Amino acid sequence: MNVELIAYTPNPESIIVRAYGICTDKQVPVSNIQKWIKAGHETPIEHASATFEIVGISRACSHQLVRHRLASYSQQSQRYCQVNNLSGNCVIPDSISENVDALNIYFSAIHHIKRAYEDLLSLGISKEDSRMILPNATKTKMILSANFREFRHIFKMRCHKSAQWEIRHLCKIMLRMLYEIAPNVFVDLYQEYC
Amino acid sequence: MNVELIAYTPNPESIIVRAYGICTDKQVPVSNIQKWIKAGHETPIEHASATFEIVGISRACSHQLVRHRLASYSQQSQRYCQVNNLSGNCVIPDSISENVDALNIYFSAIHHIKRAYEDLLSLGISKEDSRMILPNATKTKMILSANFREFRHIFKMRCHKSAQWEIRHLCKIMLRMLYEIAPNVFVDLYQEYC
Amino acid sequence: MNVELIAYTPNPESIIVRAYGICTDKQVPVSNIQKWIKAGHETPIEHASATFEIVGISRACSHQLVRHRLASYSQQSQRYCQVNNLSGNCVIPDSISENVDALNIYFSAIHHIKRAYEDLLSLGISKEDSRMILPNATKTKMILSANFREFRHIFKMRCHKSAQWEIRHLCKIMLRMLYEIAPNVFVDLYQEYC
Amino acid sequence: MNVELIAYTPNPESIIVRAYGICTDKQVPVSNIQKWIKAGHETPIEHASATFEIVGISRACSHQLVRHRLASYSQQSQRYCQVNNLSGNCVIPDSISENVDALNIYFSAIHHIKRAYEDLLSLGISKEDSRMILPNATKTKMILSANFREFRHIFKMRCHKSAQWEIRHLCKIMLRMLYEIAPNVFVDLYQEYC
Repeated sequence: MNVELIAYTPNPESIIVRAYGICTDKQVPVSNIQKWIKAGHETPIEHASATFEIVGISRACSHQLVRHRLASYSQQSQRYCQVNNLSGNCVIPDSISENVDALNIYFSAIHHIKRAYEDLLSLGISKEDSRMILPNATKTKMILSANFREFRHIFKMRCHKSAQWEIRHLCKIMLRMLYEIAPNVFVDLYQEYC
Repeated sequence: MNVELIAYTPNPESIIVRAYGICTDKQVPVSNIQKWIKAGHETPIEHASATFEIVGISRACSHQLVRHRLASYSQQSQRYCQVNNLSGNCVIPDSISENVDALNIYFSAIHHIKRAYEDLLSLGISKEDSRMILPNATKTKMILSANFREFRHIFKMRCHKSAQWEIRHLCKIMLRMLYEIAPNVFVDLYQEYC
Repeated sequence: MNVELIAYTPNPESIIVRAYGICTDKQVPVSNIQKWIKAGHETPIEHASATFEIVGISRACSHQLVRHRLASYSQQSQRYCQVNNLSGNCVIPDSISENVDALNIYFSAIHHIKRAYEDLLSLGISKEDSRMILPNATKTKMILSANFREFRHIFKMRCHKSAQWEIRHLCKIMLRMLYEIAPNVFVDLYQEYC
Repeated sequence: MNVELIAYTPNPESIIVRAYGICTDKQVPVSNIQKWIKAGHETPIEHASATFEIVGISRACSHQLVRHRLASYSQQSQRYCQVNNLSGNCVIPDSISENVDALNIYFSAIHHIKRAYEDLLSLGISKEDSRMILPNATKTKMILSANFREFRHIFKMRCHKSAQWEIRHLCKIMLRMLYEIAPNVFVDLYQEYC
């Protein structure tokens, strides 16, 4: 998994306190942001947003991620992009990579699928239909944008221990990166999850 | 694929014209709905909504569907539900079922995957991790709710000939059902796509 | 203020438990809905929605209400509809109606505004521009639709004692009506606020 | 009216083409952005967003603006902020300022309202209730954030000749500013409306 923060609102915390200030005609310090969030005044943190490029997560993970609706996604299409070298291009859960029997079963299946996918393509079946055989483990890449309020919601749902390990790992990486640029917005979540 | 309209706003067109009427203090007939839509006044048709239960679409199709963000989805979880009998539980594209060589390749792969999935489970690998090997073709089921304005948007995108065949088929079924209960809202799309 | 529940998803709780059930392949009783909500699984309650006609709230109140973005609104337009008889068509806060001096000031202003509005119209100024002089107190009417998850969010924000008295009164009325049709969804809020 | 572009995604067009590129694994030039928009592929332009501070629009105008739901707003509150000097703090439509009779009626009403508002406050009526008498013309300020796709939608609705003059004027100012930083995204609307 490779995660890159490719864009974000410059000086996000100063924009956020400017928004808090306009509601009440009072100047407010960035150190108050956590207090407002805890009081339920979350709208002003929507004025800052960030964009990540995420490469090498599974389609199982991306299917969960795109369920968050207050965000924007651009994802690599399996209808238009051929999946080359599936064996080197799929996610392996730790529970499988640490179990030699499971790993053998897994790679045997991946190899079989890889061959079937390529054979279907060579028979003239379209990429769109051939990909029906591709597994959830197939790696994908996407660009994700959301505002900071939605990122906080995503992190609360997906950094939690009940979340799937892969999306949890991804969200912790994004949380650490956003904490770097807006510590007053993310410090509570950073301390809880990182 | 089995699609059932399980709920909708009673008397949807009368609610919609009541909403048009409140904006301008004028009574308006349902026969004017198409005229307003064409003029870009689409908000009133948001007051009617519908809920479908969709059974037996592929995870490839559901991954596309859930990208429409102004709607609500509840989908069968592969983290919690075991996939039994994959061979009888996966979508086969026409381009594959009509080509005997392709069909052999396809079913051989499905059988291999089915065995691998079950072997991983019997080694104690969790459902969440074992499903990494399951294909896009695996059938899923979901409940989808949206308002009529969003359904119109979905139909315009997904009944179009550039859309994937499976989501196109699904959307045409839903369009026919909604046309039955609200012809004045959907007649233009019905005539174009059904 | 007159509030009428003009439409809602028939049998809303049965649709909601059907949605909970599809996620996990298990039948669930309606008595579990509160438990799921408390556990943060709120998506299934989005499959039920309701539509209210609200007549006689102030434009101050409607301006707050339409800030809830996951809902649909059709509102009487002051650009197209003339405001007749402003004196009988504006909201009077209790703090003013219970204070004879305040009430005199208030009505004197309303009468002055009423005359100015009508004089501007008779000079040929458009309704759109003449309404610039109309007060926040001017009554409006609207149709509002939202799903039950969003209604719960609106009620939590707007039934709270820190909310403005008028929107609080409105939201308590809507909460009571939705509690009648879906007690298992709204019982916690009903007990807290009604 | 004073409009300031206070933040935006740095290098917005390069982020947008990166998003187009990830879908198809192909590098694409910024000069293609208009072509994709016309083809209906608008999601990638959501990855760029902008934030404006808007000072001195009427509450009539802000009430229309906040109806666009895929955006974020922080607005000066009349519940918490006292309106000082209403006479110098309200919007005057051209149709009124260019008509001496209308202007006299207008200012007479504004002066009456100003006095009534201050008298109510001095009687101990809260700001929240006293503002009921304040007119639509009262100036407000807000911070508005949206992504470029939503800005395009807002401009199409609100730069149109059927829109109210004030929101139209505001939207043309914002359109010119966004055209400066992302000409390939906004050129069609700029040529049509500016």
